[in-house]
Amino acid sequence: MKKHIDKIKILFEALPYIRKFYGKTVVIKFGGAAMVEEELKKGFARDVVLMKYVGINPVIVHGGGPQIGGFLKRLGMESKFVKGYRVTDVETMDVVEMVLVGKINKEIVGLINHFGGRAVGLGGKDGSLIEAKRLRIRGARMGMAGEVKSINPHVIESLEKSNFIPVIAPVGLGPDGMSYNINADTVAGRVATALNAEKLILLTDVKGVLDNKGELMSTLSVKGARSLVRRKVATEGMVPKLTCCVEAVSNGVASVHIIDGRVEHAVLLEVFTDAGVGTVIR
Amino acid sequence: MKKHIDKIKILFEALPYIRKFYGKTVVIKFGGAAMVEEELKKGFARDVVLMKYVGINPVIVHGGGPQIGGFLKRLGMESKFVKGYRVTDVETMDVVEMVLVGKINKEIVGLINHFGGRAVGLGGKDGSLIEAKRLRIRGARMGMAGEVKSINPHVIESLEKSNFIPVIAPVGLGPDGMSYNINADTVAGRVATALNAEKLILLTDVKGVLDNKGELMSTLSVKGARSLVRRKVATEGMVPKLTCCVEAVSNGVASVHIIDGRVEHAVLLEVFTDAGVGTVIR
Amino acid sequence: MKKHIDKIKILFEALPYIRKFYGKTVVIKFGGAAMVEEELKKGFARDVVLMKYVGINPVIVHGGGPQIGGFLKRLGMESKFVKGYRVTDVETMDVVEMVLVGKINKEIVGLINHFGGRAVGLGGKDGSLIEAKRLRIRGARMGMAGEVKSINPHVIESLEKSNFIPVIAPVGLGPDGMSYNINADTVAGRVATALNAEKLILLTDVKGVLDNKGELMSTLSVKGARSLVRRKVATEGMVPKLTCCVEAVSNGVASVHIIDGRVEHAVLLEVFTDAGVGTVIR
Amino acid sequence: MKKHIDKIKILFEALPYIRKFYGKTVVIKFGGAAMVEEELKKGFARDVVLMKYVGINPVIVHGGGPQIGGFLKRLGMESKFVKGYRVTDVETMDVVEMVLVGKINKEIVGLINHFGGRAVGLGGKDGSLIEAKRLRIRGARMGMAGEVKSINPHVIESLEKSNFIPVIAPVGLGPDGMSYNINADTVAGRVATALNAEKLILLTDVKGVLDNKGELMSTLSVKGARSLVRRKVATEGMVPKLTCCVEAVSNGVASVHIIDGRVEHAVLLEVFTDAGVGTVIR
Amino acid sequence: MKKHIDKIKILFEALPYIRKFYGKTVVIKFGGAAMVEEELKKGFARDVVLMKYVGINPVIVHGGGPQIGGFLKRLGMESKFVKGYRVTDVETMDVVEMVLVGKINKEIVGLINHFGGRAVGLGGKDGSLIEAKRLRIRGARMGMAGEVKSINPHVIESLEKSNFIPVIAPVGLGPDGMSYNINADTVAGRVATALNAEKLILLTDVKGVLDNKGELMSTLSVKGARSLVRRKVATEGMVPKLTCCVEAVSNGVASVHIIDGRVEHAVLLEVFTDAGVGTVIR
Amino acid sequence: MKKHIDKIKILFEALPYIRKFYGKTVVIKFGGAAMVEEELKKGFARDVVLMKYVGINPVIVHGGGPQIGGFLKRLGMESKFVKGYRVTDVETMDVVEMVLVGKINKEIVGLINHFGGRAVGLGGKDGSLIEAKRLRIRGARMGMAGEVKSINPHVIESLEKSNFIPVIAPVGLGPDGMSYNINADTVAGRVATALNAEKLILLTDVKGVLDNKGELMSTLSVKGARSLVRRKVATEGMVPKLTCCVEAVSNGVASVHIIDGRVEHAVLLEVFTDAGVGTVIR
Repeated sequence: MKKHIDKIKILFEALPYIRKFYGKTVVIKFGGAAMVEEELKKGFARDVVLMKYVGINPVIVHGGGPQIGGFLKRLGMESKFVKGYRVTDVETMDVVEMVLVGKINKEIVGLINHFGGRAVGLGGKDGSLIEAKRLRIRGARMGMAGEVKSINPHVIESLEKSNFIPVIAPVGLGPDGMSYNINADTVAGRVATALNAEKLILLTDVKGVLDNKGELMSTLSVKGARSLVRRKVATEGMVPKLTCCVEAVSNGVASVHIIDGRVEHAVLLEVFTDAGVGTVIR
Repeated sequence: MKKHIDKIKILFEALPYIRKFYGKTVVIKFGGAAMVEEELKKGFARDVVLMKYVGINPVIVHGGGPQIGGFLKRLGMESKFVKGYRVTDVETMDVVEMVLVGKINKEIVGLINHFGGRAVGLGGKDGSLIEAKRLRIRGARMGMAGEVKSINPHVIESLEKSNFIPVIAPVGLGPDGMSYNINADTVAGRVATALNAEKLILLTDVKGVLDNKGELMSTLSVKGARSLVRRKVATEGMVPKLTCCVEAVSNGVASVHIIDGRVEHAVLLEVFTDAGVGTVIR
Repeated sequence: MKKHIDKIKILFEALPYIRKFYGKTVVIKFGGAAMVEEELKKGFARDVVLMKYVGINPVIVHGGGPQIGGFLKRLGMESKFVKGYRVTDVETMDVVEMVLVGKINKEIVGLINHFGGRAVGLGGKDGSLIEAKRLRIRGARMGMAGEVKSINPHVIESLEKSNFIPVIAPVGLGPDGMSYNINADTVAGRVATALNAEKLILLTDVKGVLDNKGELMSTLSVKGARSLVRRKVATEGMVPKLTCCVEAVSNGVASVHIIDGRVEHAVLLEVFTDAGVGTVIR
Repeated sequence: MKKHIDKIKILFEALPYIRKFYGKTVVIKFGGAAMVEEELKKGFARDVVLMKYVGINPVIVHGGGPQIGGFLKRLGMESKFVKGYRVTDVETMDVVEMVLVGKINKEIVGLINHFGGRAVGLGGKDGSLIEAKRLRIRGARMGMAGEVKSINPHVIESLEKSNFIPVIAPVGLGPDGMSYNINADTVAGRVATALNAEKLILLTDVKGVLDNKGELMSTLSVKGARSLVRRKVATEGMVPKLTCCVEAVSNGVASVHIIDGRVEHAVLLEVFTDAGVGTVIR
Repeated sequence: MKKHIDKIKILFEALPYIRKFYGKTVVIKFGGAAMVEEELKKGFARDVVLMKYVGINPVIVHGGGPQIGGFLKRLGMESKFVKGYRVTDVETMDVVEMVLVGKINKEIVGLINHFGGRAVGLGGKDGSLIEAKRLRIRGARMGMAGEVKSINPHVIESLEKSNFIPVIAPVGLGPDGMSYNINADTVAGRVATALNAEKLILLTDVKGVLDNKGELMSTLSVKGARSLVRRKVATEGMVPKLTCCVEAVSNGVASVHIIDGRVEHAVLLEVFTDAGVGTVIR
Repeated sequence: MKKHIDKIKILFEALPYIRKFYGKTVVIKFGGAAMVEEELKKGFARDVVLMKYVGINPVIVHGGGPQIGGFLKRLGMESKFVKGYRVTDVETMDVVEMVLVGKINKEIVGLINHFGGRAVGLGGKDGSLIEAKRLRIRGARMGMAGEVKSINPHVIESLEKSNFIPVIAPVGLGPDGMSYNINADTVAGRVATALNAEKLILLTDVKGVLDNKGELMSTLSVKGARSLVRRKVATEGMVPKLTCCVEAVSNGVASVHIIDGRVEHAVLLEVFTDAGVGTVIR
């Protein structure tokens, strides 16, 4: 009995957090180790379902880097990157879309449903959700690598109204009717902005944002984030993340969290406890 | 961090219960020690708020025995009982109503609001919620002691629609326009029936229903409950409770729980864990 | 037949008034003789029901002075006043709340329901309706005598949507979780403002506002009312009423009526006929 | 003041009736003297507006006999009747429709609006409200005299939802696309049935239904009404009225009233007082 | 089969137009030859029904010149005009209203319903749709000839919500409670403005607006239209049309079309094809 | 102009069909040549958009046979069939799902959006739309080849309410959380049944159902269809189609159409003209 009472007490520690985020939208970029390791994956799906049950509206945006690379390899196709962006010819794009939309997206949907949620997967074409434009990098031919031109959140809102959990693959629809491969962090940031989300959470494989001594910075202002980028303290991988975070906060998202997805239940820890597992940008 | 992860895991143990009772109505008879001891009272209020936040609709019915007696004493008025029912002359009824509706009810409302809920107190006259008739006991003049004639749940439903938590004092309105003092267990049972509730929980000061060896019976069928009454195994105090439970289950309430209100967070333990703290009747 | 036709003609005289106030909210401070004399009480309840049936939304706020005093006496407790406000220690407050919320409020609710309305009684704790703060009077210890800090009209609006008639007892909830005794006129004024009411009607035991010759002033401007107070023409009892009227009109209530509650059906006469029974402030 | 209080008392006598019919539909056949005499006409319009304001949904069906005859005369066209039905050739029908729909209907609409209601006039073609079939009388060529085949109440319901008062001219649309002249009593009865009305009121120029001694029968059963017809006690003019009343009551209309439209405010007297002004059939 | 495929291809040519006007309101002034010739009338009714089925909300305003004249003649009454406006004494107005509202309006309603639409006819009194004022022409006594004072579109909006097609006769209600005869073009223009319509289409018996060489001007700016009037290039009959078009466009109607109603299916041709059948003013 | 008028006339020929199917759901199995040839594909997308614009709710279910085979080949994986069902090991299933959900489905979505519709793609996992069970064929190991166990149409209904066009890939979710490859005809039939559709249309690469002389049968009863199967007149490919058609009609779908998808605009021809392009089963 004692044990049970302890459990109940722990439920209560979550109460102020539940209260605070009740009815709010939280956009989560799902990626990295959390998307690969079996236990982390399941933990993530359960986190999302629990959030939904306590009245939060989670929206998932996922990436798919490693799995795409693996599949391209099997097809004897090469992976090439410029400044961290995949050079994506039309044939590669075909594979990218199939793996992102047809495999990874549906695995996440299936997993969430398995744990009692009601997820619906969306690519950028569905309901014209993500309008893309070609990514321009000077001196490089990026092919079907794209950027977000605009987000049309109508289909997400329709699904939320019926209590579904939207799971979004970062493939955009260009004005040429072609599919474009877009960075998932960016898509998550833009979706959070379009939905006027309370939080944007980026799951990463690092501890968070580090300062120039390599120490974790648990909070960071927009100004501070900009400075890290400008002063080149931020690692190359962190720069685009910080850029998208700054943009989201500047456009009305209340807070952005860059957290360590290798920690079990990282999302819930961040939302429901005082134990930060990364860096908050406000 | 380890500690936090443990907490998250405990949140998950509650998930199947949350899922099961999401959107359901649970009527709770609040009384006994739980209503008197400071810590138990606060614990109860927080339990109710947590239930509301995870999507359950709690409806509270409270009694008020000891506090009524105390107040009557201060006014130099005597308390007399027949078969456990208070003999209630008109003057006494006045005091009963004031204490139940004006003091106890509002204390509970205030407590729930203090912990973040939005409670609204109701007496039987409000929205004509409880229609009463005179209680008839052969050979006794019971005065304004009454029984439930019918429940008109419209005002409860209106408040639930706006996410308020109804808190009900067991005072009914007679056809003569007078107030009647009604047993709170009975009111709780009839309200649960009228709302087609998922659960009716009676908080008591005993461990639950005991068999003829004095052992706690953790589950009981309607037939079993009836037999306990017939065979006079049930204590005098338990008989009316069992009778009202049997009636509620027979009229569509999925399960009734007679639990030990002296246990901290008894309600949540009963709803959210496998650790029963009393007897379930189905 | 002639008699009946005359009756019908009288119904028609009410038509322009019905039309004018259709769908509007009218807040009525119920008190004084109208709340004590049997016939006046019944008349009031019927007035309210009739108003509801012809499409007006009445909201009742009641006081309870004499009945509180009587009850305190029975308990051997003394009544003390400073500048017309009751000095209210914690023990007294307990009695005040019980009498106001548990007795007077429910009597009014019962009466309205008896005449076919659907009333629901509310104290300041219900739905956190009345937030109070301590009343400060220089040189006096007022105890739990309070002022309105803010009105949260959500619960009233929910009840009106379901066609219930809200009846409000002037007990507020302080930041300390304690109950505060508040002047009913003030509560009525603030509720009228919060609901953006069409009319605020104060039932009194005088003919209305009198000028310095003791003549009834049938209409009065905000400026005029202020001047009466400043020039000390208004009686001591009238000053707080005038102050609350001026505040209500200044905050958007279309008109405030200080009327003679000793006249039968005073409220309806004021709303539905040209025969003013007091003073209108616009 | 005394006078005003008397007035208020009279308002209260109406209260039980208002309560009883709140939200109910009352279909009124408007015709005879009430439609011709200036004062009666105005009285009728005000009755209808008052009913609407106190929460009743009036639906008006009007006839137009004398005015049609007058207009035909001006055009040098003859009026011929068989068994009380107008023999209506195509040219006559044109005039009938113009007078009923274009003149009488709009006069009533204008009058109701003048007294503060919001009326909308409808012919049988509007929203396909009245589907007609040819009236067959053995041995006679009735032309465009028709019967009701079916009522399509959708347009009435749409208008009621927006608080308009429908005013219906008894012109039906035949399967041949032609207009048919239908008896207004019959249309009123069928509309009352289709709307599941609480009351059907027929305004006539007689005192009500008389027994074989010429005495007014204030109430009448369906059986009694049938017997009057069978035993030829009813006058020729009353027979079709009784027949349509019997049909309406048999099909779910709670009561039908044949009343004396020459009495001022006959409709309100019948609905809001105990003074019957005719015969009720239940 | 080839023929059928060709047909399907034609359906597709309409697609972009359907898309463009989906859910938009189009006000059509129905008059002239289109209202007289049997085939044109039927074609018009079918055009309207088709528009409704593909998601456009048509609103019809009709005139009735020739038919009114004919009827007046039959009654031996003379027709007199000043500046194109009918001098309308009270007796004439009676006939005008009967013919417009009771005959022409219902014919159009019947025709639309015959082809599968659900039309409801409205005069200016219905729902107080058209408030009129007396038309003043210096030196002339115009009688009941009126102008639009204001449009109250509530009844149109109610009917549109239930998918009915409103058909409006240009008779207005004056402040004196009298009916006024108003120019149908003007009514159409004002209704289009009040509904914030996408298009106003005036059916005429000419090819459209002609320039000073007698050539059709297929498009015209507001400025151009004003200049035609000022420079007296426009014919006398065209001047009031141009004036009302200019006013409509200036007040938010996206485009106004003066088209040749003698062409079969003129309305659909104008809305669904590139083949203009008249003049567009933007 | 003549040409335009001819076009308008053709629009009218579609009117009765539009009227008949307004607001109805039509499920279309998209497959075969229509899904491969560029012109047919575009034609199909435009057909669907046109249907939506005229008020029909199209729901698309697609197959993907040839494209799956091609992709497997590229990966060096073999295609094996038993009784027309693909033997699907887990690795193959991975590819099947990627191609169906990630490629074909999104191409169709993109195409429909390109022509102005608002499509959203769904796999069987999305909103738990298609619950699958393992397909059992005696003597064969079919792997992840599945059958429909049940359809959960909630997500389709949510999307239709917001005017999206659902496009469904025939991949089901098994009780083991695995994906199952299901015959698209069967999915279409079961979806049509679950939605209580007006029509189910199967696009094929044959002229329709042929009798034993090889002649096209333009209509067929359920009984007739069963007989064709029993008497082995139907080709092997046609047997499962007929079986699914018979089941759909027996379960409430008004009619099923097996049509020739090689004909341009086959769907519209079937829905909007008298020119059947295949066989109707009722």
